[in-house]
Amino acid sequence: MKEITALLYHDFTALDALGPLEVLGRLPGYEIRYASLSGGPVCNEKGLTVETEALGSLGRSDILLVPGGMGSRKLALDGDFLAALRRAALESAVVMMVCTGSALAAAAGLLDGLRATGNKRAFDWTMSMGEKVLWQRDARWTRDGKFYTAAGVSAGIDMALGFVADHFGRERALSIAEGMEYCWNEKPEAGWCFKEHGKIGKMK
Amino acid sequence: MKEITALLYHDFTALDALGPLEVLGRLPGYEIRYASLSGGPVCNEKGLTVETEALGSLGRSDILLVPGGMGSRKLALDGDFLAALRRAALESAVVMMVCTGSALAAAAGLLDGLRATGNKRAFDWTMSMGEKVLWQRDARWTRDGKFYTAAGVSAGIDMALGFVADHFGRERALSIAEGMEYCWNEKPEAGWCFKEHGKIGKMK
Repeated sequence: MKEITALLYHDFTALDALGPLEVLGRLPGYEIRYASLSGGPVCNEKGLTVETEALGSLGRSDILLVPGGMGSRKLALDGDFLAALRRAALESAVVMMVCTGSALAAAAGLLDGLRATGNKRAFDWTMSMGEKVLWQRDARWTRDGKFYTAAGVSAGIDMALGFVADHFGRERALSIAEGMEYCWNEKPEAGWCFKEHGKIGKMK
Repeated sequence: MKEITALLYHDFTALDALGPLEVLGRLPGYEIRYASLSGGPVCNEKGLTVETEALGSLGRSDILLVPGGMGSRKLALDGDFLAALRRAALESAVVMMVCTGSALAAAAGLLDGLRATGNKRAFDWTMSMGEKVLWQRDARWTRDGKFYTAAGVSAGIDMALGFVADHFGRERALSIAEGMEYCWNEKPEAGWCFKEHGKIGKMK
């Protein structure tokens, strides 16, 4: 069994984690673990309390997933959290970050010299967390080596489907998207689309 | 403060609940409560354990949200659950169902004579739960009176944005979608779209 670890924290954004997990949880042979730095209950931005295991008590992950959320502002300055994130990420075969999750990875020094993106509404702050990161302001999601990053919230679903396409083929990604009745934004460079409303193109 | 109640149960689909809640949680003046029939921890299909309050201990809701999931198969035959769902739904100003959540509402007799939809991959079973429901096999989401229903998983996000448009205007819905970097499928009758892949049109 391969292990997916979602690294949660107080005031994370639920959909940042549970969107990608809905995709990844449909892969046969993978199981999901919900972790936090210390373990125990973690409450998200909207009062959702989730049980977690302590990150240090889990073995290495095949996929490590780091969501964004308001709580990331504080954690980006927390040396203990960043050290644990760095260790877990270096051990993991694949690392995925959504929204301001990529600010945490940048603060942990994981993204230096790599292409990455993040939430468009918090992009300047995110960039300030890693001056050596090759930030892609217009990207919907990115892949550089084992590191995947996504822009805001629902872009994480597109990124996770991109991972499936990379590792299991495009047909598998399309099949999972169909099972979720999700309209996949397949192109990572498509920063933002509002085709229905005539607002095609990049988000500012 | 207006109250949104998510009615969870064992083996619910996380994204069915947390997709719409990501939309609704961005409305000012609303707060979210996580409930189950008996209260206490509830574990979803993918090992996510969430704390809940007992539905009966909460007052009436402004919005009641019922996700789908494998657990709905058993609950559709559970008289106690259906009676509690019926009572909570009748008291609530608006009721939203995602995926096989609409099978539960149908089994509770809430949708007789109304237009409704559900997950395309479980549609025949869903229809069998309510012979007097005006099932819309091709719809992505529906509204009939105070009852909103959505097809599978991510269609719930489109439905919740549709609710926002109905009650707060289309600009508010677009603004929330933009904040989530979500490409809204605005048209309820659009059953399924895979525009990127040349598969535009209804899902079979």
